[in-house]
Amino acid sequence: MATDAAGPDGNVPVDKMPRTERGRRTQRAILDAAAAEFGEKGFHEGSISGITRRAGVALGSFYTYFDSKDAVFRALVADMSAQVRDHVAPAIRGADGRIAAERAGLLEFIRFVRTHKEIYRIIDEAEFVDPASFRRHYSTTAERIAARIRTGPEDAQAEVHAWAIMGMNVFLGLRYGVWDEDRSPEDVADVIASLLARGIFGSREGAKGAKEGI
Amino acid sequence: MATDAAGPDGNVPVDKMPRTERGRRTQRAILDAAAAEFGEKGFHEGSISGITRRAGVALGSFYTYFDSKDAVFRALVADMSAQVRDHVAPAIRGADGRIAAERAGLLEFIRFVRTHKEIYRIIDEAEFVDPASFRRHYSTTAERIAARIRTGPEDAQAEVHAWAIMGMNVFLGLRYGVWDEDRSPEDVADVIASLLARGIFGSREGAKGAKEGI
Repeated sequence: MATDAAGPDGNVPVDKMPRTERGRRTQRAILDAAAAEFGEKGFHEGSISGITRRAGVALGSFYTYFDSKDAVFRALVADMSAQVRDHVAPAIRGADGRIAAERAGLLEFIRFVRTHKEIYRIIDEAEFVDPASFRRHYSTTAERIAARIRTGPEDAQAEVHAWAIMGMNVFLGLRYGVWDEDRSPEDVADVIASLLARGIFGSREGAKGAKEGI
Repeated sequence: MATDAAGPDGNVPVDKMPRTERGRRTQRAILDAAAAEFGEKGFHEGSISGITRRAGVALGSFYTYFDSKDAVFRALVADMSAQVRDHVAPAIRGADGRIAAERAGLLEFIRFVRTHKEIYRIIDEAEFVDPASFRRHYSTTAERIAARIRTGPEDAQAEVHAWAIMGMNVFLGLRYGVWDEDRSPEDVADVIASLLARGIFGSREGAKGAKEGI
C-alpha cells in the first residue's frame, strides 16, 4: 500500500477532503461504487474504471478524492467500519441496561449485514490487501465494546469479553446475515442476550449442563 | 479451482492416497511445507517449486499426491481443520462437565494457534481462493460444537450457541494467540468459562450490570 494514500486512521487525507456538499455526495457515490466493485470482483480484479462507471463520475473526479486503487480500498474499509458503528450506535444507546445494549448491537449488526453482504468480503480481504486497516477495524471495534461493558478501571475481564462479543457477532452475522436468513435476527439476538445474562446452559430448562458448573 | 483437484470433502482423492508409510511421510512433509509457503507468501505468490524446496522432495513426488497448486491448497485447508480438531479433541473429551469442555477447547485452541500462527492466514485466504473449503471448515466446526452442547433433539438454541462459541474462539485466538501473547491462554479460558457458566456480568463482584437483567 502507498503510505501516502490515506491518513493514518485509514480516512481520506485532509487535502482530499471534499469542501462542498456536492463534493461530499460525489465522494459518497465513489465509496458506494467501490463497495459494489470490490464486493463483487475482489480487490485484485476490481478497477478504478469499474468504480467510476458504477458511480457515474469522471476519472478526474475519482482522483480529486483518491490517489489510487489502494487509497480508495483503504478509505472503504474505514468507511464500512464507521457505517457499522453509526448504524448500531443509536440502538445501543437507547437500550435499557447492559445486556439489552449488547442484544441491540447484535440485532442491528445482523440487520445491517443482510443489506450490506459485501462487508465481509471487503473487510476480510483487507487482511491481505491492507493488514493495517484490517487490524485497525477489529482493534477499534473491540475497544468500543470494552468501553461500554467495563464495570470500572480495575475490570481486567472487559477486554477478553469484548473480543468474545465481537467474535460472536461477526460469526453470527456471517451465518444468519450473509450465508442464510433461516432464523430471524430477533431470535438470534434473544438467544445471545440470554447467554450473556445467565450463561450458556443457565437459560435452558432441564439443561443437564446447568447443574455441572465449571 | 479445478473441480477434480480434490475429493468433495477437500481431502486427497482416492487415487492420490499414499499406500505406504513412506508415502504418508512424504505427503505429510508436502502439506507442512505448503503451510509454511502459503502462510508466508499467500496463495498467489506461493508456488509448487517453493513447496517442494521446503519439503526437500522432487517435483515428481509432489504430483504423485497433488494435481495442482489449487489441489494442495484445498487439501491443506482440510488438513489444518483436522489438525485443530485432533489437537483439541482429547482435552474436550477428558473435561469434567460441559463448561469445562468448552474451557478446554478454547485453551487448547489458543495453545495450538501460538505454535501454528499461519493457520489464520491460510483459512482466511480460503474465503477467496476456495470458498467451498472456507465454508466447509466453519460449517463442520460449528456442527461439531453444536453436537457436544446440544441438550436434546428439541434444543433450538444449540446452533446459535455453537456459532457464538466458534466466533469467540476464533477472535480470542487471533488476539491472544496470533497478534499478542500478553495474556496467558489459561487466563483467557477462565474468563470465558465464567461467561459461559454465569453470564458476562454474573461473575464480576459488584458489577452493576448483573442486577439489570435483560
